[in-house]
Amino acid sequence: MKKPAVKVSYNDLRALVEDLLSAWGLDTSQSAETAQSILYADLSGISSHGIQRLPFYRRCIAEGFVDIASRPEVVRQTPSTALLDARRGLGQLAAAEGMRLAIALAAASGIGAVCVRDSNHFGTAGYYAAQASAQGLLGLCCTNSYPIMPATFGSLPLIGSNPVAFAFPSSPHDFLYDASSTVVSLGRVELYEKLGQRLPEPWGMDAQGLPTHDPSEIVGMSPEGGRGVYPLGGPFESTGGHKGYGQGLMVEILTAVLSGGLTAAGIADAGGVGACHFFAAIDLGCFGDPVQMRAELEGYCARLRSSNVHNPGQRVYIPGEKEAESRQRRLVEGLEFAAPIWEEFAGLLSDARVAH
Amino acid sequence: MKKPAVKVSYNDLRALVEDLLSAWGLDTSQSAETAQSILYADLSGISSHGIQRLPFYRRCIAEGFVDIASRPEVVRQTPSTALLDARRGLGQLAAAEGMRLAIALAAASGIGAVCVRDSNHFGTAGYYAAQASAQGLLGLCCTNSYPIMPATFGSLPLIGSNPVAFAFPSSPHDFLYDASSTVVSLGRVELYEKLGQRLPEPWGMDAQGLPTHDPSEIVGMSPEGGRGVYPLGGPFESTGGHKGYGQGLMVEILTAVLSGGLTAAGIADAGGVGACHFFAAIDLGCFGDPVQMRAELEGYCARLRSSNVHNPGQRVYIPGEKEAESRQRRLVEGLEFAAPIWEEFAGLLSDARVAH
Repeated sequence: MKKPAVKVSYNDLRALVEDLLSAWGLDTSQSAETAQSILYADLSGISSHGIQRLPFYRRCIAEGFVDIASRPEVVRQTPSTALLDARRGLGQLAAAEGMRLAIALAAASGIGAVCVRDSNHFGTAGYYAAQASAQGLLGLCCTNSYPIMPATFGSLPLIGSNPVAFAFPSSPHDFLYDASSTVVSLGRVELYEKLGQRLPEPWGMDAQGLPTHDPSEIVGMSPEGGRGVYPLGGPFESTGGHKGYGQGLMVEILTAVLSGGLTAAGIADAGGVGACHFFAAIDLGCFGDPVQMRAELEGYCARLRSSNVHNPGQRVYIPGEKEAESRQRRLVEGLEFAAPIWEEFAGLLSDARVAH
Repeated sequence: MKKPAVKVSYNDLRALVEDLLSAWGLDTSQSAETAQSILYADLSGISSHGIQRLPFYRRCIAEGFVDIASRPEVVRQTPSTALLDARRGLGQLAAAEGMRLAIALAAASGIGAVCVRDSNHFGTAGYYAAQASAQGLLGLCCTNSYPIMPATFGSLPLIGSNPVAFAFPSSPHDFLYDASSTVVSLGRVELYEKLGQRLPEPWGMDAQGLPTHDPSEIVGMSPEGGRGVYPLGGPFESTGGHKGYGQGLMVEILTAVLSGGLTAAGIADAGGVGACHFFAAIDLGCFGDPVQMRAELEGYCARLRSSNVHNPGQRVYIPGEKEAESRQRRLVEGLEFAAPIWEEFAGLLSDARVAH
């Protein structure tokens, strides 16, 4: 018999995650910061990046890939730019610090750009971009990752999933674009594999470099052994696959090349550590009146929302809208987790002797 | 009998285009600047944006949409940002000025970001991004346009083609990513229509909002009447169409909302004028040693180039590589134009009494 899902309030869950992270060695403010980033994903309905990633983080710490005691360090700084070395600490802490610094630089100089090297998986890129828009600024965030994407006509995965997130103040929710450079995230493919389902589209290639609907043929990629998730646009140029590939490389340059850190291929060579991030913030007042900008954007979005005249039963969403509605609903109604996900989380709490 | 193609040297063609533009009312340096941007497209093999666009520009000037006498004006400036009003002048002149200013701001402040509003079609975005990398800086350029793209599940085209171009210094050619947010450019669809060919993929929708392989069902879009080119990723979320749509909106915000200019929908309302651009440049020295960055990028690109082990007869290209090779070849061998394209150009020369 299938076990029932577990429902928990946001505040209760946050206390549990904070206690868990504190038991792992973070201080109170670091636990709060990291928990907020992780739970933002669950609240937003991006469950692949929520508490179900905690066992992965635990493994990274246990195996020495993530140094929980390490703190990001400013290596270079100018009035509008900074370079941080995350010293292989938790990605969430380095990323929060990176975006905080970009916002501070933008407040002082109009625009701020911050590179972070030698970091780790930081959760969802959108969370950090949204930190800027929450303070009335334009926010941009991207990151590289373990390689999962081949070049167009390439047979080996050498490029990360490489999401780009972009946030801008608006109502009833901020505009928030957050998308990987691949056709789907690796997490989506893994989910189909766990459920034993065939993919709706050939989202990736097998070890022979051929498109496949079988998720188990796609996962387990390595820069030597092939497999991989295709770029946005798919395997061929006729559907724009070279555009997703190019965007993935653009992110590698903005994050790894500019920071002097590791490209996706280098991350794999190093055993999976050393992801690099890029953050930028712009003070809207440099270009005009933020109130007018918001009004213009809101009017445009209204026109987009009502532009569906031929697709009954479908809705035009503004980027960030689904996730904002999900957060609003789950903050009131609580968060629901499938039994296996919750049991895994409860196991981590028990191991760390956190009462629950 | 089909007329033979016409072959012409770069220098001869440049002199003709400069003379033509001077006859239209540009001064010597403006003619040179505009001709260089237009011929960069033909040299690079992007013939849709080369001299075959001159009849379109001529029409825009004749009908009063482009004010040939107007010069871009700086409306706001800070040490790292600027806002230009192009005053409905030629897009090429406003864009060259915008990127020049971004480079100058980056040279002084480390990073420069420039918005341009009330401009017009400027040619290829990559040309301007490449101005920054040619001087050793990171360059970014994007623009909105007349609306051609619907939202995911939208039935009306309300978003521009909205290319993003990104350049970074490298060898044997600079890295240059330049891609529209749509699955293909409108020019590609128009080319299939002119040749009377069916599209290889359903790149757009007809007036009823349905995917179609018939190019003539796609062109002629208007924000009231439907038709349109799909976002990169296609019409559905299962192939990532919402990502191309979101990127298109990101570009509308960076260009039109930030500058206080017209979104794609507003450009259509205004009869086709008023495109907005965004330019940014970053001094690599703010983050580290440019020589090391280039070496890292070149090593990574070499690994990508040799990553094709399963696709015989295909080659992995680095973004910008095809176009750089084309420029090198055509500078030596000359440029070839199909007879109808050349006759149209010769007609413009005759009308303007340019000797040829």
